[in-house]
Amino acid sequence: MPLTRRELLSALAATAASAALTEMSSGAPPLSPSVGERVGDETLRINASRLQQSLEGLSVFGRPDGGTFADGVSRVAYSDADVAGRKYAMQLMHDAGLDPRVDAGGNITATRPGSDSSLKPILFGSHIDSVPSGGNFDGDFGSMSAIEVMHTLHDHNVTTRHPLRVCIWQNEEGALVGSQIAAGVDVDLQRQFNGLTTAEGIRKIGGDPANLAQARIPKGSFECYLELHIEQGGTLDRAGIPIGVVEGIVAIDEYEVEIRGFANHAGTTPMPERRNALLAAAMLIEAVQKVVTSEPGRQVGTVGRVAVYPNAPNVVPGRVVHTVELRDLSAEKIAHLGAEIQKQAQQIAAQTHTAITMKQVANDPPAMASPEIQKQIEAAATSLGLKTMRLPSGAGHDAQMMATLGPMGMIFVPSVGGISHSPKELTRWADCANGANVLLQTVLRMDALG
Amino acid sequence: MPLTRRELLSALAATAASAALTEMSSGAPPLSPSVGERVGDETLRINASRLQQSLEGLSVFGRPDGGTFADGVSRVAYSDADVAGRKYAMQLMHDAGLDPRVDAGGNITATRPGSDSSLKPILFGSHIDSVPSGGNFDGDFGSMSAIEVMHTLHDHNVTTRHPLRVCIWQNEEGALVGSQIAAGVDVDLQRQFNGLTTAEGIRKIGGDPANLAQARIPKGSFECYLELHIEQGGTLDRAGIPIGVVEGIVAIDEYEVEIRGFANHAGTTPMPERRNALLAAAMLIEAVQKVVTSEPGRQVGTVGRVAVYPNAPNVVPGRVVHTVELRDLSAEKIAHLGAEIQKQAQQIAAQTHTAITMKQVANDPPAMASPEIQKQIEAAATSLGLKTMRLPSGAGHDAQMMATLGPMGMIFVPSVGGISHSPKELTRWADCANGANVLLQTVLRMDALG
Repeated sequence: MPLTRRELLSALAATAASAALTEMSSGAPPLSPSVGERVGDETLRINASRLQQSLEGLSVFGRPDGGTFADGVSRVAYSDADVAGRKYAMQLMHDAGLDPRVDAGGNITATRPGSDSSLKPILFGSHIDSVPSGGNFDGDFGSMSAIEVMHTLHDHNVTTRHPLRVCIWQNEEGALVGSQIAAGVDVDLQRQFNGLTTAEGIRKIGGDPANLAQARIPKGSFECYLELHIEQGGTLDRAGIPIGVVEGIVAIDEYEVEIRGFANHAGTTPMPERRNALLAAAMLIEAVQKVVTSEPGRQVGTVGRVAVYPNAPNVVPGRVVHTVELRDLSAEKIAHLGAEIQKQAQQIAAQTHTAITMKQVANDPPAMASPEIQKQIEAAATSLGLKTMRLPSGAGHDAQMMATLGPMGMIFVPSVGGISHSPKELTRWADCANGANVLLQTVLRMDALG
Repeated sequence: MPLTRRELLSALAATAASAALTEMSSGAPPLSPSVGERVGDETLRINASRLQQSLEGLSVFGRPDGGTFADGVSRVAYSDADVAGRKYAMQLMHDAGLDPRVDAGGNITATRPGSDSSLKPILFGSHIDSVPSGGNFDGDFGSMSAIEVMHTLHDHNVTTRHPLRVCIWQNEEGALVGSQIAAGVDVDLQRQFNGLTTAEGIRKIGGDPANLAQARIPKGSFECYLELHIEQGGTLDRAGIPIGVVEGIVAIDEYEVEIRGFANHAGTTPMPERRNALLAAAMLIEAVQKVVTSEPGRQVGTVGRVAVYPNAPNVVPGRVVHTVELRDLSAEKIAHLGAEIQKQAQQIAAQTHTAITMKQVANDPPAMASPEIQKQIEAAATSLGLKTMRLPSGAGHDAQMMATLGPMGMIFVPSVGGISHSPKELTRWADCANGANVLLQTVLRMDALG
């Protein structure tokens, strides 16, 4: 039988005090009895050394030959390393007292029953696939922490009111494939990842691409979805703040720009006669920078991919194709910035005697976090003595698909130097422990609330 | 026995008059007896329809399958098409009364004896290899015209004082290989062209790579070298002037620029925190344009090749490598422009928090045309009623190697729209005939002078 909260408090007093040094090495106050009704839950802490072991254990699947943890990981979706990593994660779930399943979409889920079967489940999780030459924290940290939260509850025999469900989404890095399937998006089963079609990949990881509808999560069927993740930017690290409370995941507009000039001999074409597509591109790249930084806010704009034709030292470039990507929480703001860039592109075309077309190729809406969940994350962090900062997520996450189905919240921890998608990606173990504890405490608060 | 000049004049009177309509369809005055000693030579004209036939005949070697003359040619050095085209050119030389030889360097030469064996030969020619998907005039026109000049002298039994030698240089488009060998440059025999090493290529076209020294032309051993070529730029075409008198072949400085910023997530890296290598490159591309156009003159500057890393829409570029190429007749001028670009690059590096290195990778000196030959080309054109314009050659030519050995002159004819290295390359037949006649008359003037 599970303990009551009051019984739990006394049971924990001794172990918690001894664990404090190991588990709460940064920022959190020493454990001590708190005041108020919910004091029992507030003293519960994850096992930080076990979380570290889980992450280190996972890191070997996809590690470069002869490398160490610091050499990062290539655990691309549907690779053998991905399959091995998933098996490892499921073993950890078993150890945490769970019974993991792979659904038709290839997502791994495991549910811990609650005391009130009429209540909707609380979902939390992340992903364990990586980009090629990625790091050991993006996705892995949130996934291992979700399992650790379950393991902690199991250790302490805590029964929540709501059922709890950990979700490890498949192929987040490719295109949020697993969470898109859960959200009922019609994914392209022929799209290739790592040499396999999505259908082949889903079969390889134990799913059933012919029955994806079985993996759908009905709208409104869960209490909330929580995701703990590294920031992947440098804002928290620079500010020295251990917990980020995500306001939402930004909208993304992507454009493909084509500039047509005229390719000609670099030696024989006088400067005034040139129709230099690369000169026009250079002016437009600067214009993107100026337009995006011309007004206050946290919007970003990037020209990341450029192709120059014919791309020879002795030929005036006749054609350039490049991307423009704009992100902000406000879809209206980036639409207006895109229109301004479009306007300046036409002025540059006239100046350089080129023709410029700018075609929108992506238009992803923002996914806002629930204001109530943001408050609960802040309260959880405060109860742990951890400072918080609200910020948008500039990167996409499975949470944005879950936000289309129900209330969503995200917790960020600092990335050292803001580095991500790189073997150099690093979140300090103390920050990992803080983040996992905030996840645990937020789960308990949402459980108490709903 | 060859005719004297006076005998030649009367012999030509009838034929020249009947040929005038065909051969002199643009700009040249009707033939009429001229005053002065050299009048006999001045009435001599090439056979314009035979020149057209030679060019059309050559164009089939390397023509795209099922194509026409307008579809251009791929007669890349050492290809089977090159071998076939060379055989065709040698047949034309035989028809012109010459005995062509392939020297150890793979160049085709044929000498027509003069009346005074103590005089140095007058050399003229060009190349017949092409770029992939090139046109039918670059090189081919000068080569076929050189043979046509020989054929005209043969038709009319003219004996010059100096020996005359036509030279068809091998692999001009690759790297002036044949003329470099003639000039004693130590060419890289392992460098690959069209799937063969230079050594294999030279063997394939009948040369002897083990004995390249035999193909050297000693310095000062010829009276002068003349080359007729299409302009490959649009200056003459725009000005409506049929003959360009080349002042020299420009110096070329080439730099490789490397910009190191920091690759980071385009969604999570705030604008002020970015070290965007592509933004720095854009600013530098604009700086090259501004520096090059900031002072009067015909200098050109080009950024033609750009590589962006990692080149993904959602990553702030961390590294960009690009070329900067500067050309002008004055080596001092482009050295000074390069230094100014270098200076601005360092300012841009500071502004963008990137590191910029600019390494010189080529430093080709200018090759000046002989002032005396320029005057003789102008006089020859004037005698034909053709307007001239002095201009630099922005493109490289075999003539620049010959200029290291003796006096050099180049004659340009208009390229329609300035297009070259393209199947669309076009020089009108009337302009071809004018150019070949100016070459003929310049040869005769140089013969009379030296």
